[in-house]
Amino acid sequence: MSSTAPRPILLPADRLTAAIAQISARIGAQYVITDASDMEGYLVEQRGLFRGATPAVVRPGSTEEVAFVVKTCAEAGIPIVPQGGNTGLVGGQVPFGALLLSLGRLNKVRALDATDLTLTAEAGCTLHQIQQAADAADCLFPLSIASEGTCQIGGNLATNAGGTAVLRYGNTRDLTLGLEVVLADGRVWNGLSRLRKDNTGYDLKNLFVGSEGTLGIITAAVLRLFPKPRRRATALVGVTDVHQVLALFRRLRAVAGDTLTGFEFLPDFGMETVLKHMSGAVRALQGQHAFYALAELTSTRADDDLAAMVEGVLAEAFEAGEVEDAVIAASEGQSQALWKLREDLSEAQKFEGGSIKHDVSVPVSRVAEFVEQATAACEAHMPGLRVCAFGHIGDGNVHFNLSQPVGMDKTAYLDTWEDFNRIVHDIVVSYAGSISAEHGIGFLKREELVHYKDPVALDVMASIKAALDPAGLLNPGKMLVAKGE
Amino acid sequence: MSSTAPRPILLPADRLTAAIAQISARIGAQYVITDASDMEGYLVEQRGLFRGATPAVVRPGSTEEVAFVVKTCAEAGIPIVPQGGNTGLVGGQVPFGALLLSLGRLNKVRALDATDLTLTAEAGCTLHQIQQAADAADCLFPLSIASEGTCQIGGNLATNAGGTAVLRYGNTRDLTLGLEVVLADGRVWNGLSRLRKDNTGYDLKNLFVGSEGTLGIITAAVLRLFPKPRRRATALVGVTDVHQVLALFRRLRAVAGDTLTGFEFLPDFGMETVLKHMSGAVRALQGQHAFYALAELTSTRADDDLAAMVEGVLAEAFEAGEVEDAVIAASEGQSQALWKLREDLSEAQKFEGGSIKHDVSVPVSRVAEFVEQATAACEAHMPGLRVCAFGHIGDGNVHFNLSQPVGMDKTAYLDTWEDFNRIVHDIVVSYAGSISAEHGIGFLKREELVHYKDPVALDVMASIKAALDPAGLLNPGKMLVAKGE
Repeated sequence: MSSTAPRPILLPADRLTAAIAQISARIGAQYVITDASDMEGYLVEQRGLFRGATPAVVRPGSTEEVAFVVKTCAEAGIPIVPQGGNTGLVGGQVPFGALLLSLGRLNKVRALDATDLTLTAEAGCTLHQIQQAADAADCLFPLSIASEGTCQIGGNLATNAGGTAVLRYGNTRDLTLGLEVVLADGRVWNGLSRLRKDNTGYDLKNLFVGSEGTLGIITAAVLRLFPKPRRRATALVGVTDVHQVLALFRRLRAVAGDTLTGFEFLPDFGMETVLKHMSGAVRALQGQHAFYALAELTSTRADDDLAAMVEGVLAEAFEAGEVEDAVIAASEGQSQALWKLREDLSEAQKFEGGSIKHDVSVPVSRVAEFVEQATAACEAHMPGLRVCAFGHIGDGNVHFNLSQPVGMDKTAYLDTWEDFNRIVHDIVVSYAGSISAEHGIGFLKREELVHYKDPVALDVMASIKAALDPAGLLNPGKMLVAKGE
Repeated sequence: MSSTAPRPILLPADRLTAAIAQISARIGAQYVITDASDMEGYLVEQRGLFRGATPAVVRPGSTEEVAFVVKTCAEAGIPIVPQGGNTGLVGGQVPFGALLLSLGRLNKVRALDATDLTLTAEAGCTLHQIQQAADAADCLFPLSIASEGTCQIGGNLATNAGGTAVLRYGNTRDLTLGLEVVLADGRVWNGLSRLRKDNTGYDLKNLFVGSEGTLGIITAAVLRLFPKPRRRATALVGVTDVHQVLALFRRLRAVAGDTLTGFEFLPDFGMETVLKHMSGAVRALQGQHAFYALAELTSTRADDDLAAMVEGVLAEAFEAGEVEDAVIAASEGQSQALWKLREDLSEAQKFEGGSIKHDVSVPVSRVAEFVEQATAACEAHMPGLRVCAFGHIGDGNVHFNLSQPVGMDKTAYLDTWEDFNRIVHDIVVSYAGSISAEHGIGFLKREELVHYKDPVALDVMASIKAALDPAGLLNPGKMLVAKGE
């Protein structure tokens, strides 16, 4: 694994002490944490890839207090790392000596309008909290990811989180109408627009979404809601190869259109791993199949017979020899049981030893070719390796994970991470794909970004960073490698 | 009308002559137009609000040639105005002494993939050309605006064009996956991504979309296509006030969900104006109604009974006393006839004398209140004025147009444009709305932008402009007012 030895940030002790005292006086001493054991939960990265260090965790309780913290730090030259639920997978939320600014106390849903279909939330609201608030108003907030109970919307926005409903509803970016952002100098940009159409200047919103806290600190957002679906159909389909997963996707999408809200896939190895290790996981199809597709359809029309539509499409697919076996959930409970097989996969992989992970995307039309080529290349590099390529095939997003050969030493296996990065990412780029489809760059992938990203794009990014954060104090060393670093 | 007397740009004659000679040698003398009558079509703005001036119209034929023109001009300090189909409504495409760079020769559809649902088009393709290419591949490109036969996709991208299908499909921004852009120094950023998910850095795409040629010149784009709808239903409904238009929208959206692709409205005055002046316009409902709603539903499912769904919703609305009369088109011809009543409205207004226009938006939930308050304020300011508030009520986008009192002198009426701007825009802003929902800022509204836009946002915009176009040579004087100007 690359990038595990960040250069620590050294801060002038006197200015630091003075700034922390000022912050403490303003936001309350109880919200400035310096005790090592109390800071622990903010510094430990969940996969154990990084261990952070910070002089203090500060927990402002309002946008004005965030602005005060940022302004105070800007004046003292102190770098800041913003943090939400600390669930990021690329180390973007980990401080290496910078002050840690936790947004968790900004946790109010400020407004919800069921006609506008908008919800205004503060950065520290958990994703689950927002989903629940939408549901209580008979609306849907469609963003859904594995960490939704813990992750915070501010982090989802900063990383442009994806998930299983992107096919129909888009990424976090597409679900956002407006933002409130504290800029690098402590000024607040109030861009909390509830408008569907507004062509009055540059699109600042999308610049901050996905910028991983390097351009400004998002304190609140106006999110898009949708009419709540009244009907749902879930189907699990077994096929003989990954090309047939794609063929089924095309066939289903042409008929189902907008009602097709999710289309996932997993391989035989993934399915058997879940069935072997996860309690409550139940085999849904007779026998084993090389690949499985999981299709989710929803409709706002209570009388919409989605199951009949899926049945019709599957019947055609059977006739064309594209499908081996299939089941359509006959109840909400059965839908959940089918989804469990897919959702438990990340967890289940842990029982099979070391896993080298890639979060990549390619054009949808090429995803089957990509999986085959990358699988062959990795298996050739290390015989006995077990490829677990799964994910959101409808978006071209593959979690191309590699479980270690049985019996191999885990540490020795994980030491080969960079070799596999090069093999997989070279193939991804040859397909005009992305080396980070949904997890972002953070600290983990910033050297990969320099290696693969168009130099012109990197230059433009650096110009924008210099324009909005000239002192380089916002989440330093993340996403971009600073000049001279 | 404000902003009709731009400060002309004076260029050093020797450098200009040399640069034009260089460009001519590279792209071909026949593509450098300096003859006054040949330049006429590029300099006349269609509503007659501006008359442009330029030393030359240059028509490069490839991205490389555009890059050469921009690099040559950058080195000589010559400002450039990019132009597509010259259909913009705010003067963004009009040069006031700068070189005019016409993108019209970059008019190829480079690629189309029906699995990826992507189409790669050069900037000079007309919107109609792209719609046709998508249709030929059994796909839908949903962007639809009145000028689609003439406007070019480069201009649609530069202005983030809206139109009648935004309710379901979003603005041009939402229909774009990737861009190719010539930067201010002549470098080319190849961001022609076909990916649905890519979190590798700042969102440069959305920064260029809607920047009106002030940050870079878009030469090509990857656009999103959709499965082609197989069924369509169109309904025209007469109601007693604008609040009922909104009530019907809510009621229909809750059931129809994604199948509701358009929801427009127009007032009695608008309907009667169309019926009086436009050939082929046929009254579709008995009698007159204070407002009309036009709902469009589409589905990818060939057996989807959309008309029955609309009928069911309308029956409930009748029962609730929200609807006076309604008709559902029974054929494609009838659908077109209903849409004609809405689409002909812009043209029909010309027969009623001077029209002072506002392209505004407010949160959807407040659009009825807004229309009532702004109507009352304008009528109080000038008795006899005829308000024609129509547009895309499902997006909160109102074309708040004001036809002159009968018999008033047209010029005298149009001289009051700024008074009405202030009245209408003050109310818009009090509703947290936008003074330019879909037409952009250009030259026409840049002073209004300074008047109404958050100063922090304007500052950030100026920083970005300075970072990406430090010499200020790209579409100078548009959108932003330069310091010292």
